[in-house]
Amino acid sequence: MELRIALAQVNSAVGDLDANSSAVRAVTARAVAAGADVVLLPEMVLTGYPVEDLALRGSFQRAAAARLQTLAAELAADGLGATAVVLGSLGTARAERPTNVAAVLRGGAVEAVYTKHHLPNYGVFDEYRIFAPGDPDDVVVVEAGGHRLGVAICEDIWVDGGPVAAMADDGLDALLVLNGSPYEFGKGAVRRRLTRDRARQLGCPVLYVNLVGGQDDLVFDGHSFVVDAAGDLVAASPGFVEDLLLVALPGDGAAPTTPAGYALPPERSDIAQMYEAIVLGLRDYVRKNGFEKVVLGLSGGIDSALVAAVAADAIGGENVVGISMPSRYSSDHSRDDAADLARRIGADYRVRPIGPMVEAFLAEMDITGVAEENLQARVRAVVLMAVSNSEGPLLLATGNKSELAVGYSTVYGDAAGGYAPLKDVLKTHVWELARWRNEAAAAAGEEPPIPWSSIEKAPSAELRPDQKDSDSLPDYDLLDNVLEGYVERSLGREELLDSGFDPETVELVLRLVDRAEWKRRQYPLGPKVTAVAFGRDRRLPVTNRWRERL
Amino acid sequence: MELRIALAQVNSAVGDLDANSSAVRAVTARAVAAGADVVLLPEMVLTGYPVEDLALRGSFQRAAAARLQTLAAELAADGLGATAVVLGSLGTARAERPTNVAAVLRGGAVEAVYTKHHLPNYGVFDEYRIFAPGDPDDVVVVEAGGHRLGVAICEDIWVDGGPVAAMADDGLDALLVLNGSPYEFGKGAVRRRLTRDRARQLGCPVLYVNLVGGQDDLVFDGHSFVVDAAGDLVAASPGFVEDLLLVALPGDGAAPTTPAGYALPPERSDIAQMYEAIVLGLRDYVRKNGFEKVVLGLSGGIDSALVAAVAADAIGGENVVGISMPSRYSSDHSRDDAADLARRIGADYRVRPIGPMVEAFLAEMDITGVAEENLQARVRAVVLMAVSNSEGPLLLATGNKSELAVGYSTVYGDAAGGYAPLKDVLKTHVWELARWRNEAAAAAGEEPPIPWSSIEKAPSAELRPDQKDSDSLPDYDLLDNVLEGYVERSLGREELLDSGFDPETVELVLRLVDRAEWKRRQYPLGPKVTAVAFGRDRRLPVTNRWRERL
Repeated sequence: MELRIALAQVNSAVGDLDANSSAVRAVTARAVAAGADVVLLPEMVLTGYPVEDLALRGSFQRAAAARLQTLAAELAADGLGATAVVLGSLGTARAERPTNVAAVLRGGAVEAVYTKHHLPNYGVFDEYRIFAPGDPDDVVVVEAGGHRLGVAICEDIWVDGGPVAAMADDGLDALLVLNGSPYEFGKGAVRRRLTRDRARQLGCPVLYVNLVGGQDDLVFDGHSFVVDAAGDLVAASPGFVEDLLLVALPGDGAAPTTPAGYALPPERSDIAQMYEAIVLGLRDYVRKNGFEKVVLGLSGGIDSALVAAVAADAIGGENVVGISMPSRYSSDHSRDDAADLARRIGADYRVRPIGPMVEAFLAEMDITGVAEENLQARVRAVVLMAVSNSEGPLLLATGNKSELAVGYSTVYGDAAGGYAPLKDVLKTHVWELARWRNEAAAAAGEEPPIPWSSIEKAPSAELRPDQKDSDSLPDYDLLDNVLEGYVERSLGREELLDSGFDPETVELVLRLVDRAEWKRRQYPLGPKVTAVAFGRDRRLPVTNRWRERL
Repeated sequence: MELRIALAQVNSAVGDLDANSSAVRAVTARAVAAGADVVLLPEMVLTGYPVEDLALRGSFQRAAAARLQTLAAELAADGLGATAVVLGSLGTARAERPTNVAAVLRGGAVEAVYTKHHLPNYGVFDEYRIFAPGDPDDVVVVEAGGHRLGVAICEDIWVDGGPVAAMADDGLDALLVLNGSPYEFGKGAVRRRLTRDRARQLGCPVLYVNLVGGQDDLVFDGHSFVVDAAGDLVAASPGFVEDLLLVALPGDGAAPTTPAGYALPPERSDIAQMYEAIVLGLRDYVRKNGFEKVVLGLSGGIDSALVAAVAADAIGGENVVGISMPSRYSSDHSRDDAADLARRIGADYRVRPIGPMVEAFLAEMDITGVAEENLQARVRAVVLMAVSNSEGPLLLATGNKSELAVGYSTVYGDAAGGYAPLKDVLKTHVWELARWRNEAAAAAGEEPPIPWSSIEKAPSAELRPDQKDSDSLPDYDLLDNVLEGYVERSLGREELLDSGFDPETVELVLRLVDRAEWKRRQYPLGPKVTAVAFGRDRRLPVTNRWRERL
């Protein structure tokens, strides 16, 4: 008998049990109306992900457990009780930690619970801190319409052994994999290859559903997909949007099929995907934290121009407050480019020269050199935060990864802000993204959002006369290559020299990065904890709808 | 045969392999001169602790491994090769992570390596992220002078099972435990009880050596000690200072003995210990990061007065730059108290009224209400950071845990600073610490450092006319009790109500804390990472002497 399975790629918010639960009910109703017998949802969709130390709070654990039971009953009351709904949530504690689970809801009850076995604990993941692992032999197989569907969660298919190996001889008709897999440059190909290998290992199709949406410093890209038993791609959801993907498992062990008229979404370029990830991350950070607008300083340079264009794409240009804050070192072309950009994206544009405020400090104190450069950047931050406090918009920091890595920014100055859309984007990618966005606009017959002169002129901080980035830093092509080795790949000095970089450049970049890294950590906003009397701050999500007081 | 063992309670710095190695050589020479046959040093003393993600850098792993071999040879060259030196360091990787090890150096070589089995991964610890655990059956027993000495590292004795259980029938003559155990209020009694239980379990004395010194947001308190097979205390080092503690194990299985003239150090009160922890944490943060001076705003209030007194105790009053920055809302008594404090501690005292700078912003922008309060705090931060940038002192933030918890502070304003000595100190403890410090001075016949009026007056932020903390917050005794339940013990709303707090107070405090926690995380200095292209920042220590470029 043919079994129809819907992969529901949804966007949930950490802590918002009611809204996430409503989203599950709504998408299940849509899936069933489209003919689905089974609905598959992402990892921890009910609680949001990553929950960080919120998972450790007893009151939240109890609320999540209760919400899951209620959801099962609500689905039945909605007339969806015959459908098997497989979704991720927070599970009952084992020993002293809760678990990361996939629950199977059917017939108004929680029919089965699978506990994630392989817990990632590297890079952005800290799951050993907050979860207890499931027993690798405690597998869950969902029976539906004569089919046997194995269940696994994300990291379970990235590591050999564990539940996938335990199910190898179970005669599965398909493997359902619930994921909370964040976007990384080029990760799509890795996911496909890995899933292909698991399909071949199990000899059955694999259905991979992923979260979509921004959550604090992560962006989940969606890109859910289905491969057949040979590992070949059958169907896929687009990235960076919610989606409902329907496939059917024939009763005869043949490959999964797609509905009439279905076509695979086009592949996007790496730069296009990066742009979409940045837009989605910004939009969800703003909206999930309850903001309507953003504010940022517009210098006329490429970084603030790109951030403004991203913000306009994310929440609409009319919700972007752009403030030009010229000093005596600002060039005319900078002011013109800032105004031109604001016009192109339809921003709420204001001009606020900082001369009088800077002069007030200089009249009282003896401030020169780099301290004077920092003063200008900090006066601008005070202006921007006053607008944020008075009118409510979220302040965006416009720094890119290259300049932040080498410390080419001011603590409590241009580094100030609640969200920095380019913090993980190297300067060479900033230019590529700006060109891509402008060319996409031109191809669509629209006015490009970013003034071409902002893209083409030599970068300058304009904090002293005739200052250029190239006075202090290597050429950005070279700098980004060294940063890629030193920061991303953790290469040491010797390894960088062996890669062919010249000793002077390596020396300069390592000195700048080490110093900047130290300064950045030395001036955190949430200042140092002395661990006197109590422990270090727990790690909680920023975007977190869970409130004890509700 | 009697075996003499020295417990070397030393202060090491993360990443400074050369200095830490020299410290091991120096203290070993002193111990041997005092008659020691075995020298026991703390967990990861060679690399410093906690190393955070520095442990994952291949170049650092290789450097630490090489340094350990070199150290063994140097000890032999120093004429100390006959002594068994047991010390903590970073061990060779298993799978993809390095290990946390205790190495036994003797005869110019690394004789044995024990790998920590139980890895703490809660609160301030994240050891699963950076270490692979050792096999629980791979025990190391050091043979010296006919004695058999088992080896364990910190968490190994906090958890049942593992290597301590594996050694239960090994006929040990003593257990050596290397620790990196940070100070917490009341933790000493827990350590003693735990160690007593392990001594009884093994039927032998336990020698517990701990790191001492501040390392970023942790303070290691030392307090090394020795118990006999019954778990009774034989000898102990004082807290918060380096120390060398010598005990002897008689050859006949009798209890350990101490040298003639040895006396246990006096027990200090909880408040005295907290004060010492704050002083040590500040001193080491300043010195290990290469600063000589600190700068802070002196308001005349209790928080800045206590921080200034702590700083004077830590690095000398002459190295404390205290700046009074009165506004039109500042009272006369505040200015007087600030000046009086500065005189008492011998600070470099300056007065810088902020009126002209604040007026410059108000003349250009329409800023009122809370935004105007924040403006004043931010102008002060700009003044303080200008001094920091021009003259080099580290800026201290003076906020306490209670006000930070409820958001009674300004982002980029009074929350600015590289180190916040009171961040983990509740307001009620701030008053207790100030009184304790003044009374200790009076008892010693010295002038108390803190003006009594700063301790006794009602707390006020003085950001608007006649403002008092009590306008916005519950009484601090009550507030701190609710915070202790909600923040420290993670109690939920229902549990707090069950504890007897009235609903209005619970409602207010939970709303303030949730909002403040959100704002604090929303405005980090290292702004949000979008995980585009590359991963989230690795966690590196602030105080970190390891530099690739060296």
